[in-house]
Amino acid sequence: MANQNNQILKNTNAQILDEFNASIMFDKELYAQDIKGSIAHSQMLAEQGILTKQEQEAIETGLLQVKKEIENGEFKFSLAYEDIHMAVETRLTEIIGEPGKRLHTARSRNDQVATDFRLYVQDKSLSIKAQLKELVETFVNVAGKYTTTLIPGMTHLQHAQPLNFGYHLLAYANMFKRDYERFESSYERNNYCPLGSAALAGTPHNINRESSSQKLGFIAPTSHAMDTVSDRDFALEILFNISTTMMHISRISEELILWSSYEFQFVRMSDEYATTSSIMPQKKNPDVPELLRGKTGRVYGNLISLLTVMKGLPLAYNKDTQEDKEGVFDSVKTVEISISILNEVIKTMIVNVDKMQNACKIGHLTATDLADYLVQKQNMPFRTAYYITKDVVALANSLNKDISELNIDEIRSANDELKNVSKEIVMYLDLRNSMNARNSFGGTSSIQTENQIKYFEEWLENR
Amino acid sequence: MANQNNQILKNTNAQILDEFNASIMFDKELYAQDIKGSIAHSQMLAEQGILTKQEQEAIETGLLQVKKEIENGEFKFSLAYEDIHMAVETRLTEIIGEPGKRLHTARSRNDQVATDFRLYVQDKSLSIKAQLKELVETFVNVAGKYTTTLIPGMTHLQHAQPLNFGYHLLAYANMFKRDYERFESSYERNNYCPLGSAALAGTPHNINRESSSQKLGFIAPTSHAMDTVSDRDFALEILFNISTTMMHISRISEELILWSSYEFQFVRMSDEYATTSSIMPQKKNPDVPELLRGKTGRVYGNLISLLTVMKGLPLAYNKDTQEDKEGVFDSVKTVEISISILNEVIKTMIVNVDKMQNACKIGHLTATDLADYLVQKQNMPFRTAYYITKDVVALANSLNKDISELNIDEIRSANDELKNVSKEIVMYLDLRNSMNARNSFGGTSSIQTENQIKYFEEWLENR
Amino acid sequence: MANQNNQILKNTNAQILDEFNASIMFDKELYAQDIKGSIAHSQMLAEQGILTKQEQEAIETGLLQVKKEIENGEFKFSLAYEDIHMAVETRLTEIIGEPGKRLHTARSRNDQVATDFRLYVQDKSLSIKAQLKELVETFVNVAGKYTTTLIPGMTHLQHAQPLNFGYHLLAYANMFKRDYERFESSYERNNYCPLGSAALAGTPHNINRESSSQKLGFIAPTSHAMDTVSDRDFALEILFNISTTMMHISRISEELILWSSYEFQFVRMSDEYATTSSIMPQKKNPDVPELLRGKTGRVYGNLISLLTVMKGLPLAYNKDTQEDKEGVFDSVKTVEISISILNEVIKTMIVNVDKMQNACKIGHLTATDLADYLVQKQNMPFRTAYYITKDVVALANSLNKDISELNIDEIRSANDELKNVSKEIVMYLDLRNSMNARNSFGGTSSIQTENQIKYFEEWLENR
Amino acid sequence: MANQNNQILKNTNAQILDEFNASIMFDKELYAQDIKGSIAHSQMLAEQGILTKQEQEAIETGLLQVKKEIENGEFKFSLAYEDIHMAVETRLTEIIGEPGKRLHTARSRNDQVATDFRLYVQDKSLSIKAQLKELVETFVNVAGKYTTTLIPGMTHLQHAQPLNFGYHLLAYANMFKRDYERFESSYERNNYCPLGSAALAGTPHNINRESSSQKLGFIAPTSHAMDTVSDRDFALEILFNISTTMMHISRISEELILWSSYEFQFVRMSDEYATTSSIMPQKKNPDVPELLRGKTGRVYGNLISLLTVMKGLPLAYNKDTQEDKEGVFDSVKTVEISISILNEVIKTMIVNVDKMQNACKIGHLTATDLADYLVQKQNMPFRTAYYITKDVVALANSLNKDISELNIDEIRSANDELKNVSKEIVMYLDLRNSMNARNSFGGTSSIQTENQIKYFEEWLENR
Repeated sequence: MANQNNQILKNTNAQILDEFNASIMFDKELYAQDIKGSIAHSQMLAEQGILTKQEQEAIETGLLQVKKEIENGEFKFSLAYEDIHMAVETRLTEIIGEPGKRLHTARSRNDQVATDFRLYVQDKSLSIKAQLKELVETFVNVAGKYTTTLIPGMTHLQHAQPLNFGYHLLAYANMFKRDYERFESSYERNNYCPLGSAALAGTPHNINRESSSQKLGFIAPTSHAMDTVSDRDFALEILFNISTTMMHISRISEELILWSSYEFQFVRMSDEYATTSSIMPQKKNPDVPELLRGKTGRVYGNLISLLTVMKGLPLAYNKDTQEDKEGVFDSVKTVEISISILNEVIKTMIVNVDKMQNACKIGHLTATDLADYLVQKQNMPFRTAYYITKDVVALANSLNKDISELNIDEIRSANDELKNVSKEIVMYLDLRNSMNARNSFGGTSSIQTENQIKYFEEWLENR
Repeated sequence: MANQNNQILKNTNAQILDEFNASIMFDKELYAQDIKGSIAHSQMLAEQGILTKQEQEAIETGLLQVKKEIENGEFKFSLAYEDIHMAVETRLTEIIGEPGKRLHTARSRNDQVATDFRLYVQDKSLSIKAQLKELVETFVNVAGKYTTTLIPGMTHLQHAQPLNFGYHLLAYANMFKRDYERFESSYERNNYCPLGSAALAGTPHNINRESSSQKLGFIAPTSHAMDTVSDRDFALEILFNISTTMMHISRISEELILWSSYEFQFVRMSDEYATTSSIMPQKKNPDVPELLRGKTGRVYGNLISLLTVMKGLPLAYNKDTQEDKEGVFDSVKTVEISISILNEVIKTMIVNVDKMQNACKIGHLTATDLADYLVQKQNMPFRTAYYITKDVVALANSLNKDISELNIDEIRSANDELKNVSKEIVMYLDLRNSMNARNSFGGTSSIQTENQIKYFEEWLENR
Repeated sequence: MANQNNQILKNTNAQILDEFNASIMFDKELYAQDIKGSIAHSQMLAEQGILTKQEQEAIETGLLQVKKEIENGEFKFSLAYEDIHMAVETRLTEIIGEPGKRLHTARSRNDQVATDFRLYVQDKSLSIKAQLKELVETFVNVAGKYTTTLIPGMTHLQHAQPLNFGYHLLAYANMFKRDYERFESSYERNNYCPLGSAALAGTPHNINRESSSQKLGFIAPTSHAMDTVSDRDFALEILFNISTTMMHISRISEELILWSSYEFQFVRMSDEYATTSSIMPQKKNPDVPELLRGKTGRVYGNLISLLTVMKGLPLAYNKDTQEDKEGVFDSVKTVEISISILNEVIKTMIVNVDKMQNACKIGHLTATDLADYLVQKQNMPFRTAYYITKDVVALANSLNKDISELNIDEIRSANDELKNVSKEIVMYLDLRNSMNARNSFGGTSSIQTENQIKYFEEWLENR
Repeated sequence: MANQNNQILKNTNAQILDEFNASIMFDKELYAQDIKGSIAHSQMLAEQGILTKQEQEAIETGLLQVKKEIENGEFKFSLAYEDIHMAVETRLTEIIGEPGKRLHTARSRNDQVATDFRLYVQDKSLSIKAQLKELVETFVNVAGKYTTTLIPGMTHLQHAQPLNFGYHLLAYANMFKRDYERFESSYERNNYCPLGSAALAGTPHNINRESSSQKLGFIAPTSHAMDTVSDRDFALEILFNISTTMMHISRISEELILWSSYEFQFVRMSDEYATTSSIMPQKKNPDVPELLRGKTGRVYGNLISLLTVMKGLPLAYNKDTQEDKEGVFDSVKTVEISISILNEVIKTMIVNVDKMQNACKIGHLTATDLADYLVQKQNMPFRTAYYITKDVVALANSLNKDISELNIDEIRSANDELKNVSKEIVMYLDLRNSMNARNSFGGTSSIQTENQIKYFEEWLENR
């Protein structure tokens, strides 16, 4: 009886342990890459005479059938397989018999998993890049509609200078373009094929790594087997790239949340992207941008996880590295859905032009323009210009107006030095003129904004 | 009396607050970049007729004097200046009077700090890259001495296959080469000039951003003022690059610590890089690699700090961003000293060739070679080969030998199937032969190792 | 000549290495704890007859002199000392000669540094706790002034229900009270004395660890020497406690920034805690809360640093652990100054009661109260109540009023079902009544708020 | 046609969005807590006369049926429910009709989710605490078998002093005891009931929060509704506690990996906890400790994720907070399985006593004992003792012995000062004597080790 209990206990432990050790429940995500890699490997082995043509054909046909079974949902994943590689190979051998066992010649699980995972990261780098391009396009398109719509530019969340809203949106086009470039760069840097590195030292078989590398779309095989099986730089790079992208997404999300508040009312989320209260139809919670902002934490966590795992690992393969995948899968899915949803949010948001423009009349945003005018056009010392500006601001306050709303008589009355000032000063205090005056390269003027849109349109066309 | 106390309290608070707000105590690190940026700005202003030639000359001479004062240690940094930009400008105006005040035309503290910080990051990217090149060179040079020295290649910290020690070291040459490439790539991607972005929207002045950008060694001016003053991607990239480099350093450090233990005794740190116990002259603590390993935590922390700071910040400049610099300075100093010290540690370590080679005789490292031989040369089914190999291993254990040490008679006696096996089997069990048999591209054979060294020598020459 | 260059190089390397290895430049922070610990140790040694009374007296006097020298600024810290322990001991021996060398009997640098660092963490836990108490007091005091001031309670940054502002502030009193409790708890849990653990295994000397523990204010000596010298849980705990505190500070900072914006205008920072623009006197940048928010990143980074350092360290002492202190020092200073400044910010902020109260009239905050009334008092099915409420909201919108501003005639006209509704319904739509109706334990009613203030006043008194 | 495509696109977007917004796929983990909370709430409502007895009974019966359906696997979770609360309530109403809709009286999703999640964290704190107790017990039991087995105590991974292996294991008993205490402490600190906080401000209903709190096993209701719905300190605390526990697990894992290596051979994992190579039966990979070590990264990541999410969130509830759960669930599962497996690993590991004891003879571990002897017993100045010890070590090296192996004649021959030294010196050089000499409180002597075991046995009994 005690023995029987021990046996049950042992079985329970064995079950727990299998769950602990196995990676099949998450690395099945890699089935397509695993099968693709195996086909390329078998073709190379046939080219080198290590497999016969018949064996290779049986393997390839068998692998494609396994793939179909997985995609049909017929394939039963079980802990017993331990990982996706064993799962595929075991099923292959069931289907085609003996040749299935020969597929593993001249490779090891270490280079196989490195290949599968790298193929995944490379595939995803390309698809995220494509999504980022689309997102840039959306920002550029929406920006194009608002190049003359005034919005208060903020520093410290305080009104600072009048901008156009198109210009504000283009700031994000620039951020997501940089993200695009980072994915492009890490893709190129890591586009080398691990296959043939074997366990850690290469293989005595007469393989042709150039050939399998080429079949899988890599530039070349990696150049050091031991480094290859223990390298996870490519995974860290995609985690960092995603973190930076999500950081940018968190910033536009923060702004959307602010802009959706009663206090701002600059934009409204379209109905799909806001939760409405059943009883207060005018109330719309910006759930979507809030969740986008929150998901930033998740991808930061995944980055720090893998950095921690890799710290201080001796060469070459250690089982710790099995912890590399879930965080990457999770971050990839998070950024994919986040870009996709942000894209729709921006496309469908309803902009309240009046609220934005009226908000520019709070804060005397053109006070600097006034002082500049006095210095430049009236050749006044800056100190003097400063005190005069203060007087104009004070007058405006007393009239309950913004200085951009003062007429020439009011301005002239503000300070004795202004009593003969030219009428053109009114133009310098105008909000729109102020915005358009900032016409330096990269500045907010409508002309510069249009130029930037043209630049982006070309950039998009060439990609 | 109460009033007086209040006044004192107010002063104390003011003092604490100044310390809290001021960045001068750390951003003085940027003095050279600040002065360089201001000189370029003044030259551009003179070209555009915004400053006179005389004013510009006075400014340039004055700035160079301020620089000298700082480098001489004559300059008194004080909290009153708040930041390095104010410190330099205030002193400049003391020296040259009026024109000093005109330097700030057409720029703001926001683009000035962005320029200074980016110049710093770019300067450091180049110098760390140069250090990494030197480190790669050291690994390649030391590797060159040990291309025929056997060492047990490990997976799971268990002996797996015989490698040569040169090959093992080249794994790190590959890692640090990838780090080099990351610094190169981020340098290129971020090589754009913030100057002229002004507060957040550009400037009404007729400036020439191309000109100042060129003077400062950038490719071109940045293309969006608002994005520019709130962008810290370049800082995040250097923090990530440093984190990855330190992660690699932590791995070689871990190996050096293991190899220095009584249990391994593969290498000894030279006397400078190990602490000796006063009473036990043979005891050497690998303090330096331990500290290198520990410093990884620090740079990971700095990365997560800045990611956290940037999360959810609305545009454009927010004071939070002032927290961007200390972590970067700290990470840069950490990686600089770490690379420099690791470089010396590797150059001066004493390798115990005998211990390494003898260690290969533990673990029957050529058991796989035996099975492979039986399959390939004797055309035996793998299952059979497997059971025979097990018998040979068992025999070796009973003789207290490693299978690489068995003679032909012993091998033939291990299993009936082997009784007529060819003498050449002994060669397949030899450790050195096994190492050299792994001659696939990127494999451990001495030939492949030499090829890789040649590849690296060329790479180094072209950089 | 080459030799001479080598010598110089060697010296340069030696210098770099000293900087790398030495901790004196940061661990001098621990001088007071080091001296305190040494005095206690010497007293215990004298009690046990290991030191003579004379020796002990010489040591104590000498140590107090060293302390004075450090506090006077006379003490020259130099890299040559390596760490604070050596610095103090070397100077002690200079002053008192032979007995200075006997101080180190029955202890090692490992337990000495563990003692110093733990004393520091314990001291700081108490002082931060005291600061948190003061901060709670400030929130409670300021809350007391605004228990009847309406403010829109937000979810999703959308107006949700009317609160009183005192209640809102008490949310933070609760957070900082929890922080207080965490410091209290970690202080108790870690209040054990490492002294006498020696290098890793205890000491053959006949020491009395109870005695030195008691002299240093600990509960008892730690119970396992090897664990003690490698344990940094106490440091991780203070880092986590600080991270949580700073997270709470970041939340009130975010609110202060929002409330200071033109859009909200609920509060203004007093002049000391906001940067004013020289030309726009009404503009106030909330630099201080922004910086408080930014500093959160820094302490998170320090936490992750030490977690990373400790991961996977074998027992007992490893030099990696030297990286434990700077992050703790930095986090402690950050939280100290942050609490101190937040305390002043809250005390001195100027509350715009009108803006807050008027803001409650946006968003039909009492729509739920209306529906509740119809269900409870009119026994209406919820569905019906819902549609009627929608009609009232629609009417209010058409009149450009908030439903809290409707009079009984307007309400009765909104829907046929309401035409005979009791006049008391107006009271249910009243904002203040709505706030006071939430009178469940922990609710926002002025009565509950006053109760909570009373609770806190007692809590404060008992601490 | 275009319209139709738009419709399809809209549906696809809607699907993506539902996935993005919904939490049901992970928060179904909370079903038991949700149902428990709802039953308590309904009972309280009935007590207060807000529900009738019949309604309450219908609700309770219905909820228990929903629970059974979930546990039977009959319940179909669907995105349409959005979250577990809606899922349960919808099904309840299907089963019992009208009264199901009245369950939500006087609560909101905000306090409901806070209650469910807190119940989960509290439940898990207790169960992890129980597991930690078991783990401590295992370490204590195994330690008990080895209180006289010598093992070289290490600092810097270098042999330092002889310990007994039981003592070494007790270091971990101490760590896990501290972890236990942290879970205990956070459990107590957070044991307050959110229910009745409603959306953010309490409720106008006449509820009794004391009653529902008591029914759910909390000490008392939380004291501030707004704080309660936005507080996630309890979640951060469990994440930190788990991180510290996993850090300790990573340290014993590192040691198990080292000890399992060919170089150490101090322990072998039992067959269940090591992967064997099919061809090399003597090779055992310590996969399990490697994976345990790797999983540390994962929980650190989850901690930093939630810290990031919470940073800078304004009050009260924001949708970002929905990101709080997955990381906690993942960390809880990770630590549960990790403790459970480590427990078995320690119980079943095979200790190689001979290897451990022989390893003590490398490194002249008793050199310090020799110097101490000369100082204490021969009253020699330390400097002299030092030089003599050096000579003895040199002699031992020349004889290829450890100083613990020298006989009295050899010792006497090492230096003139020793020529008449007492025979008892041999005893001081003996490894076991050296271990037993460290008999200070918390030291390594077998007596102290036994005392500590007794202490732990009592501790375990009282828990």
